[in-house]
Amino acid sequence: MITDDTICAISTPAGAGAIAIVRMAGPQAFQITEKVFRPASANKKISTQPTHTLLFGTITDGQNDIDEVVISLFRAPRSFTGDDIVEISCHGSVYIQQKILNLLIDNGARMAKPGEFTQRAFLNGKMDLSQAEAVADLIAAQSESARRVALQQMKGGFSNELINLRNKLLEFTSLIELELDFSEEDVEFADRRQLIDLVDQIDTVLKNLINSFSLGNAIKNGIPVAIAGPANAGKSTLLNALLNEERAIVSDVPGTTRDAIEDVININGLTFRFIDTAGIRETHDKVENIGIKLTYNKISKASVILLMMDARDEDQNIHRTVMDVKKHMNADQQKLILIINKVDLVDSSTINQRFSEDAFRELTGTDAIVPLSAKHRTNLDNLIDHLLQTVDTNAIDNNQVVVTNARHYEALKKAREGILRTRDGLLNGISGDFIAQDIREVLHYLGEITGQITTDEVLGNIFKNFCIGK
Amino acid sequence: MITDDTICAISTPAGAGAIAIVRMAGPQAFQITEKVFRPASANKKISTQPTHTLLFGTITDGQNDIDEVVISLFRAPRSFTGDDIVEISCHGSVYIQQKILNLLIDNGARMAKPGEFTQRAFLNGKMDLSQAEAVADLIAAQSESARRVALQQMKGGFSNELINLRNKLLEFTSLIELELDFSEEDVEFADRRQLIDLVDQIDTVLKNLINSFSLGNAIKNGIPVAIAGPANAGKSTLLNALLNEERAIVSDVPGTTRDAIEDVININGLTFRFIDTAGIRETHDKVENIGIKLTYNKISKASVILLMMDARDEDQNIHRTVMDVKKHMNADQQKLILIINKVDLVDSSTINQRFSEDAFRELTGTDAIVPLSAKHRTNLDNLIDHLLQTVDTNAIDNNQVVVTNARHYEALKKAREGILRTRDGLLNGISGDFIAQDIREVLHYLGEITGQITTDEVLGNIFKNFCIGK
Repeated sequence: MITDDTICAISTPAGAGAIAIVRMAGPQAFQITEKVFRPASANKKISTQPTHTLLFGTITDGQNDIDEVVISLFRAPRSFTGDDIVEISCHGSVYIQQKILNLLIDNGARMAKPGEFTQRAFLNGKMDLSQAEAVADLIAAQSESARRVALQQMKGGFSNELINLRNKLLEFTSLIELELDFSEEDVEFADRRQLIDLVDQIDTVLKNLINSFSLGNAIKNGIPVAIAGPANAGKSTLLNALLNEERAIVSDVPGTTRDAIEDVININGLTFRFIDTAGIRETHDKVENIGIKLTYNKISKASVILLMMDARDEDQNIHRTVMDVKKHMNADQQKLILIINKVDLVDSSTINQRFSEDAFRELTGTDAIVPLSAKHRTNLDNLIDHLLQTVDTNAIDNNQVVVTNARHYEALKKAREGILRTRDGLLNGISGDFIAQDIREVLHYLGEITGQITTDEVLGNIFKNFCIGK
Repeated sequence: MITDDTICAISTPAGAGAIAIVRMAGPQAFQITEKVFRPASANKKISTQPTHTLLFGTITDGQNDIDEVVISLFRAPRSFTGDDIVEISCHGSVYIQQKILNLLIDNGARMAKPGEFTQRAFLNGKMDLSQAEAVADLIAAQSESARRVALQQMKGGFSNELINLRNKLLEFTSLIELELDFSEEDVEFADRRQLIDLVDQIDTVLKNLINSFSLGNAIKNGIPVAIAGPANAGKSTLLNALLNEERAIVSDVPGTTRDAIEDVININGLTFRFIDTAGIRETHDKVENIGIKLTYNKISKASVILLMMDARDEDQNIHRTVMDVKKHMNADQQKLILIINKVDLVDSSTINQRFSEDAFRELTGTDAIVPLSAKHRTNLDNLIDHLLQTVDTNAIDNNQVVVTNARHYEALKKAREGILRTRDGLLNGISGDFIAQDIREVLHYLGEITGQITTDEVLGNIFKNFCIGK
């Protein structure tokens, strides 16, 4: 058995605070607690204490009192992992946390591996694999949308639907395989029309889930936005202005940015990762050319490009720069927003005429044109609206399932390939053994998502990225 | 009333982890929880839920589910603060912690000030002031001895004894003041001999407590050890060797050192703060002279000075350097350990003869002489023993009360001045009104320690140094 030993870990963030939690799960959790905990009320006994109760008392190593604590008791199976769980809420000195952890280990618990509590919850059938993965996503959530999709996935999300569809498919496979046993008799136990209906139904579900991944990925990893334009166009000023907008909450989580030079801004629950780039201009300087190549490289990786130009630039110049940038873009997958900065420095009546969106956009072929003053923070709202429009968040707003996990995405794509082959086979009257093989592949990939089919390697890869104590 | 509003704070260390705790205390804690928490079992109700129980469920803002959490319920007066307390154990994303905190504030709680939970515990009579102060010491504890004395103080420590003695003294004051009302009749309600006995008893207690402060201070702030000696004597090598000793656990707590160049090492439960100094040698170089002045300045602040010399140095040179260092020492309060390093480079038989402790120590007047090789880590145990001997830890080992708090120390000293004046007055037959005045002063200072007498300013100073959430 996997959960025959008792694991422990500090579950609160590293460092000193008011309170820290040392968590222990497993069959010996209560016995070990009994050895190291003396309840304040002498008549209380851990062994007879009901589940979901709190006890005040003292952690002791037998010779010395270590700390006054409150312990939370959860009896199997009514706990996060399904095991007996004891959580020790101690004074948040790092020294005390460590001392209590060592005491538990001295008394028979062992240090938990990253994600091992959640892994046990999965192995004990408290949640399926995609729910377990969502626990890590929830802990990592740094924006409203990331929190929402992770919570939805943790609460069951698409796994119930997938398990349900998979079970129906499984029935058909059994019938088809039964047919194979009676192949000489040419019978059809599996109703082909019903099977095609089911396959179509599954195809629709898979297609929607697969399509949701571009949103899911944007939610989970943030939307990469490159700010490009000539060196003096005011890119840094714009970034600072956005960072200072009241509605734009800067994430204060360390390690948020994947790159030291990125600025991460949460706007309306979405995370935008702003990538500042070197200035674009024609040059014969070799070093500068390398910088410009890097800029185009960054542009090619962004979902949105903000091209900043100076309102005092000539139309011709703006037009040429837009064309340059567009050469390095994939118009199907990337949006280009042209920002005309420093509008305070030109005549306001000209602005409206010159940059009236339709005419100018037609000329340049951008997705939007926003005249603004980064310095005076005018018209920033307009830019923010356009940024938000680059992401279709309908699915989150309607509480639809959104796939955020690349592992799920890959498995869904492979399952759908199998489903399409199955349908082709059915429509073309292919023999049962080939169809059964295609269906088996679909069953395999769907099962991988929910963890009905899994390997130690897959589990290892998933849980190694969890934090310790969860 | 002070606890008529409801306070909340994140009580776990800052940052992301597996679990975080959002704590709320006050008369509305349960009502607010009812608004934002939906129990998983529909038949559970916060209002009827017994104290010291745990409920699993969902935090919701009415429109959206925020997180799945476990809440701990403590009903007044059976809680840390004496108020109703709810602790929300949520997924440890910083975003989620903050969102739940904001939700509580939106529903009527207010952000707690640093230490406000503990301050309420004091104001509600759950602990006296010295116990409340010990809560912060316990959270800050970074060594075994610091943890022990803080826990002892939090559990009542000397406050019970002080309160008891103070109450006895208070009785006598009342009797003496009654005498003053009947001053024409020349009566003595207060038995002077009994009063002298009590005063002697209090004097003994105060004297012991005051004397314990040098140990207490060493425990709380660490023992400052200066490593001095010529530049090539091997000071850094020794530090590294000590840091690598198995028994020497380096504290990994950020902010441990008060000075960037200090190394902090825990040995046998005591914290030693090692201060590396610039090399000492005679020089006429102005800049170097400034460095040497700084070295002597650091030496004057250390409790222990490790003077490192090279075993190949001539006796005369060693002797002169010792004398130089001693000129800058206060022999009553500082210990000098002479380390003869690099013994591997000289003939071992000579070593024993040359540095046989008694003879050489007499010559140099040091507290100990330790020949060793920092490079080869020989005889480090001997040095560690001598270091430990510089601190008399009997009081901790015997679980005696140790004063670690400078505020208590000051109050104890002033109380003792009053006690000594009282005894002088009693022995010299001074009139009752003067004696009553001296006793009042003692009562005042004793009361300040336990918080029986206090001001908002004193409380403010104490709790402002707490962390938020405690």
